[in-house]
Amino acid sequence: MKDLKSLLNVRYPIVQAPMLGVTTPAMVAAVSNAGALGSLPVGGLSPDRTRERIHATKALTDRPFAVNLFAHEPAKEINEAEITTMQDFLAELCLEFNIPFERQNPADFKFYYYEDLIEILLEENIPVVSYTFGRLKPDVIAAFKAKGTILAGTATSVAEAKLLAQDGNDIITVQGIEAGGHRGSFLADEPSPQIGLSALLPQVADVVDVPLLAAGGIYNQHTVKAAFALGASGVQVGSLFITADESAASEAYKQAVLNAKDTSTQLTRAFSGRWARGIQNEFMKRMDAKGISIPYYTIQNQLMSLIRAYAQKNNLKDFIALWAGQAAGNSKRASTEEIIKGLIAML
Amino acid sequence: MKDLKSLLNVRYPIVQAPMLGVTTPAMVAAVSNAGALGSLPVGGLSPDRTRERIHATKALTDRPFAVNLFAHEPAKEINEAEITTMQDFLAELCLEFNIPFERQNPADFKFYYYEDLIEILLEENIPVVSYTFGRLKPDVIAAFKAKGTILAGTATSVAEAKLLAQDGNDIITVQGIEAGGHRGSFLADEPSPQIGLSALLPQVADVVDVPLLAAGGIYNQHTVKAAFALGASGVQVGSLFITADESAASEAYKQAVLNAKDTSTQLTRAFSGRWARGIQNEFMKRMDAKGISIPYYTIQNQLMSLIRAYAQKNNLKDFIALWAGQAAGNSKRASTEEIIKGLIAML
Repeated sequence: MKDLKSLLNVRYPIVQAPMLGVTTPAMVAAVSNAGALGSLPVGGLSPDRTRERIHATKALTDRPFAVNLFAHEPAKEINEAEITTMQDFLAELCLEFNIPFERQNPADFKFYYYEDLIEILLEENIPVVSYTFGRLKPDVIAAFKAKGTILAGTATSVAEAKLLAQDGNDIITVQGIEAGGHRGSFLADEPSPQIGLSALLPQVADVVDVPLLAAGGIYNQHTVKAAFALGASGVQVGSLFITADESAASEAYKQAVLNAKDTSTQLTRAFSGRWARGIQNEFMKRMDAKGISIPYYTIQNQLMSLIRAYAQKNNLKDFIALWAGQAAGNSKRASTEEIIKGLIAML
Repeated sequence: MKDLKSLLNVRYPIVQAPMLGVTTPAMVAAVSNAGALGSLPVGGLSPDRTRERIHATKALTDRPFAVNLFAHEPAKEINEAEITTMQDFLAELCLEFNIPFERQNPADFKFYYYEDLIEILLEENIPVVSYTFGRLKPDVIAAFKAKGTILAGTATSVAEAKLLAQDGNDIITVQGIEAGGHRGSFLADEPSPQIGLSALLPQVADVVDVPLLAAGGIYNQHTVKAAFALGASGVQVGSLFITADESAASEAYKQAVLNAKDTSTQLTRAFSGRWARGIQNEFMKRMDAKGISIPYYTIQNQLMSLIRAYAQKNNLKDFIALWAGQAAGNSKRASTEEIIKGLIAML
């Protein structure tokens, strides 16, 4: 088996998890500058915005960093009735909470997929491309392989890990149920695999022969050591970076993370249509109580975009996605450099 | 912090999980005879049956073993309408699957609680009393303490662990979401805490000062080492014993466990009214699809008792609870002695 640090060209086998809406170029650069691997999330972004963020990161570091893609399939169909029912509900809720609401027309939806970004990543010589929500198409994998790009897919079950290994991934990120944010699952989504890291990682290690990155609930020396004991070659840490100085998280989000208990998070499809783990808030509760059908990713994500943007701007914790893992409450306010150095000291 | 092995008076810090319907006196004795700790489940059993099982175990070992209680509160009320709806559904289902069905009268229900068994445990000089589903009443704890009994409650969250430590437990079993069978949760039940072992155990270890037993998904050397790295002083293993020669599991149940994948289990309230993890089968699917209200434990458990007994006797995998954890598929057919010696070799 190849060595993870050589594959990633880093001194320390620690990866900062890509968190869209939280991770900034400054965060990525600070992690990479410290000798670990920063990850820049660009899933769903436009080609222009993607290039801009890559350039912003490169301006701050000469060290390698990963760029993270969303490898989902496009939504199969637009269900107008489902969208109307959802928008009716959102309109009502916004009225109650005094949030401006603008009805969207599905005909105007414009989604970007990972295939729109491959050319940019190749041109920009991105050394590590990580991804979640699916498998890359064979021609995309071939293009990256030809370029020497290191590929790292995300698995939430043994079956997913086997497919990613077959596809030629150099590394597999094994995401336990503890992890915050979106589940990377792509083989089944209802119900999505909900396997604890300590049962999932060793079962993947038993059958797959590529270096594994452990993701989910890693926050201290005990959890770092356990990840290696379970068969990981490195760890991916997300929640600890939400409260970093370089984080784009709103103050309300940071405060919710600092106050989180082990039981504070739930899985929800309310914000994006995909299962994800976040700190429970009013919007999640209302959506659960309403019980209406939630349009699939990326439709629901789009329907929520203006509400989330307004809530983010106005520091309203109940209408943004408070993505966080089951150990997020152990976060501290600090610079990204301090946080990554703290993790390095745990190795 | 006291030493777990001294508290339990064992050579090896391994506990065989109490599994009602699976664990037999022969299994308990074989584990204890090998130098680890067997656990005899008596939750919900009558005083006579409890004494009988304790005597049967003592006849096979001179070594210490634990007796395990269910420490839940009695169901608060009997909801006749809910019970009628459930029995209507069960009658219909049994007709479809050609299973004899006998309607039960709630007035005839007779439940045993842990308080009915305390005197027996004290008389029988049981050295270790473990329990799940709740806290023991202060007078019960006082009686055990006066006798020198070692107490081990079960926690599924940090808050539960704190309460158990306050109550004077000598040991806390920390049950991760990976674990098979009933969730030990007692502070919240809907939704029950669903925290992965690798996020839960270290967060409990951070705030509680008694030895911890790690439970959930432990099956090989990697998982044993990880449990210790996470802060456990010992491990509790359940699923690996389902396929033991001394197990009371039916052949259909054993086969389902041997064939289980990491994704095979789900949480369900279908069989007992309490959340528990088992391999998905037809009954779980039908109950989910039906969506009717499930009477709380112990009512639903009672309503299902004849169906489960018939299915057990007739080797029908779809109408028994196939309790199993997220790594259960790593089980092998072997004697309990071989299984426990395999675990000891992993230390």
